[in-house]
Amino acid sequence: MTRTVVASATKEIIIGFDQPFCVIGERINPTGRKKLAAEMIEGNFDTVKADALAQVAAGATMLDVNAGVTAVNPNETEPPLLVKTLEIVQELVDVPLSIDSSVTAAIEAGLKVAKGRPLVNSVTGEEEKLEAILPLIKKYDVPVVAISNDESGISEDPDVRFAVAKKIVERAADYGIPAHDIVVDPLVMPIGAMGTAGQQVFQLLRRLREELKVNTTCGLSNVSFGLPHRHGINAAFIPMVIATGMTSAIMNPCRPQEMEAVRAANVLNGTDPNCHTWIMTYRDHQPAAAGATASAPADASGSGRRRGGRAGRRAAG
Amino acid sequence: MTRTVVASATKEIIIGFDQPFCVIGERINPTGRKKLAAEMIEGNFDTVKADALAQVAAGATMLDVNAGVTAVNPNETEPPLLVKTLEIVQELVDVPLSIDSSVTAAIEAGLKVAKGRPLVNSVTGEEEKLEAILPLIKKYDVPVVAISNDESGISEDPDVRFAVAKKIVERAADYGIPAHDIVVDPLVMPIGAMGTAGQQVFQLLRRLREELKVNTTCGLSNVSFGLPHRHGINAAFIPMVIATGMTSAIMNPCRPQEMEAVRAANVLNGTDPNCHTWIMTYRDHQPAAAGATASAPADASGSGRRRGGRAGRRAAG
Repeated sequence: MTRTVVASATKEIIIGFDQPFCVIGERINPTGRKKLAAEMIEGNFDTVKADALAQVAAGATMLDVNAGVTAVNPNETEPPLLVKTLEIVQELVDVPLSIDSSVTAAIEAGLKVAKGRPLVNSVTGEEEKLEAILPLIKKYDVPVVAISNDESGISEDPDVRFAVAKKIVERAADYGIPAHDIVVDPLVMPIGAMGTAGQQVFQLLRRLREELKVNTTCGLSNVSFGLPHRHGINAAFIPMVIATGMTSAIMNPCRPQEMEAVRAANVLNGTDPNCHTWIMTYRDHQPAAAGATASAPADASGSGRRRGGRAGRRAAG
Repeated sequence: MTRTVVASATKEIIIGFDQPFCVIGERINPTGRKKLAAEMIEGNFDTVKADALAQVAAGATMLDVNAGVTAVNPNETEPPLLVKTLEIVQELVDVPLSIDSSVTAAIEAGLKVAKGRPLVNSVTGEEEKLEAILPLIKKYDVPVVAISNDESGISEDPDVRFAVAKKIVERAADYGIPAHDIVVDPLVMPIGAMGTAGQQVFQLLRRLREELKVNTTCGLSNVSFGLPHRHGINAAFIPMVIATGMTSAIMNPCRPQEMEAVRAANVLNGTDPNCHTWIMTYRDHQPAAAGATASAPADASGSGRRRGGRAGRRAAG
């Protein structure tokens, strides 16, 4: 059974097929958040702290930490900023971190200060990236997110994306890095732009699980880019990727609809023993608040009982 | 490609792997609805009519029609009541119907009056049932729901349930009934009582699709029986069964959370071309109404854009 171990100072988490879905909180990332970027440049980490606390409170398993503020010379400015951000976050919350940067020097600086066993986000199939990142993964003995694109970009052909993932796993093996420390991101395209994006990912996830036997992740909300009511699309995508083999996602845990989908999919996937987390979270849930419709007959809530009764009759028959 | 054709007087619907999920409205069923049963016995069909209209308005593809009121002698009383109910429903709404009865005489009576090409619900692997129902299926050239239990009840072993389904398909073939007219119900057990119920169904659905190449259905809400906030469990179960190959379900279309899950899963499964239905349904959706949390930062809705930007950067790299 594939197990990717990540850890904070005191807490170890396993990413695996038989584990609850690993929710990697995406909020601490200034990309596309101008206000956060401006704050971080000024040395103001109030939003970083608030986001760390809110995401853990909302149920994040891990936190992704990115300090890629737009800067003239990220090779010089990003390493100290990422180090500072990681230190602030790990002082505040005790969950494993994902060190997220496109700057190799920033990743190495982060690896020197991160407690426990962080995840590195990310390496790709590009030669330059492989040669820069894999030695660090080996040296620090940490897992890494492997994004299935290379010099030619992101292929629309899932077989090509699978081949890139396979290449990364093989190259990692050359460095002595085991497959269970590679968490493949099959790349999720917006479904509004490419109608086969979902089916591509489901097919890729099955192959990654059955053939490469690796854990997987993705930038989850990308799938709903450009569509109305994105949370509804995201909340259905989560159970679908979990059913087809995905074991983690980089997502916003502060969205209740998405987190409800994660918890329900854990129940249905058999990774919430005795439905304990579900029952603790929703035992006081008021059905009316969940969107009961005026057109639903008054006894609509009894529908499950009916079906239960029907199954019961069948069993008896 | 497996295609099960059902039809009303004027409308043909295809159940298939490449089709939108077929939602079979479950409401017209007096089992467990004492008030409805009492009304139907009295010849009052007001609730039947209201349920027919509400379910079609909510997006049901087909309607299940059951007239199994508790009676001393169902073999005599159920056939005329089912006929009456079917006639009332098909005068009111133009969707294909599912003739739902455990009484063979009622099914045959229903087949004589139902317009178009109804679905028969159901046959099981029990010898007596096979011999009673399959000749009717052949005679009236209609599809049938095949429930994967037999004289020994419902097995907890998914391999046994698969074997029962296979037996029904083979027995049907002996009567000259093609596999594409068998819609297998793999039987969904309550996840609260059996933690492996979900995984069992996912595994069965894959085999039914890949090995038997049949369409599938289930009594959907049974999975959440006994748990709090059942709609949340149901709404995650729908995308999971769709991702693993289920093509229809007997469910309550008047629940907005479940129907949203169906529509989103259709988008992600590539059966809502250009996301047309999704966009038409949710283009005016207000994010706040979907359960935005006070703890979510104000720019939370931009998170997908960030991920999109990240993927974009990757592609450019």
